[in-house]
Amino acid sequence: MPVKPDILKVTATAKSRLFQVEEIDLRFSNGVERTYERLASRGLGAVMIAAIDEQQNVLLIQEYAAGIEDYLLTLPKGLIDPGEDALQAANRELKEEAGFGAERLEIIKEMTSAPNYMGHKITVVLAQGLYPCRLPGDEPEEMEVTHWPLDQLDELFSRDDFSEGRAIAALYMVRDQLRKAQV
Amino acid sequence: MPVKPDILKVTATAKSRLFQVEEIDLRFSNGVERTYERLASRGLGAVMIAAIDEQQNVLLIQEYAAGIEDYLLTLPKGLIDPGEDALQAANRELKEEAGFGAERLEIIKEMTSAPNYMGHKITVVLAQGLYPCRLPGDEPEEMEVTHWPLDQLDELFSRDDFSEGRAIAALYMVRDQLRKAQV
Repeated sequence: MPVKPDILKVTATAKSRLFQVEEIDLRFSNGVERTYERLASRGLGAVMIAAIDEQQNVLLIQEYAAGIEDYLLTLPKGLIDPGEDALQAANRELKEEAGFGAERLEIIKEMTSAPNYMGHKITVVLAQGLYPCRLPGDEPEEMEVTHWPLDQLDELFSRDDFSEGRAIAALYMVRDQLRKAQV
Repeated sequence: MPVKPDILKVTATAKSRLFQVEEIDLRFSNGVERTYERLASRGLGAVMIAAIDEQQNVLLIQEYAAGIEDYLLTLPKGLIDPGEDALQAANRELKEEAGFGAERLEIIKEMTSAPNYMGHKITVVLAQGLYPCRLPGDEPEEMEVTHWPLDQLDELFSRDDFSEGRAIAALYMVRDQLRKAQV
């Protein structure tokens, strides 16, 4: 690994309810100085849940995404609340968004989303041993849940309404891991 | 697909050099109203390039990511400039960041990053028929390029310094597509 640049200064430049923009002044090891903007990461991180039922289907939710002003198929996900670890948050979000709890939860990978300008991280959790259980969440409307066969990911990823890079990565990783476990 | 919520109002709430934060007031089809914050998407989108050499290695770059204050291994990527299409931008970024041009370029998938609160999209491009060609870019330091075997993705994804969800998704999709083409 190369020598990290020196962080000369971090300055808050804009702030809203959810977002905090910062400028970070850097001096790289070759002497070059740069100022970048980034979103400060707040909170305890987030989880994304790949919940697999007994028939090897993954549970997908249909959710309105305000960033792109459209409904998307994706995996249940949400922020880790104070006092929770990633697995507890995953089980809670699964109950709130998909109406299932999980007997077995396992961390697959901690991912970054856009690391050049965001500190946000999301932990992918594999959930198995599902049982019906619904917790009330803060969603504005109930989410339709689809059970999608894990051996038909190609068809899923060819759909325009399944586009979230982190969800595509999570499903491939989970499929590979479960296939290896079967061998 | 459900009926999309009505967009009652969009209000700019904070602005910096790179980022524009907006509030979006929504009324869902069940009558529930919500206000969400999001980052407005500006510009023409971005590209991420999976460049595969004759030996079936993918070209990785090592880049400092200001959002997480560390170096990461990832795929070359960058913004589409005015006047460029996605394939032209991909070939230019590949030349700037990795020192290679490509004879054959192909769009694999348009991905979203965090669609609940960002409109940003990134187009994954498969690049083949590589030849040495370096264009000067705006990077603060030269990026080290690694040729990583496409049949050793598991080992790559188990590394803590390879964490970008979009890059993991891109490499799995490209590997699957190239395997199918060989059959």
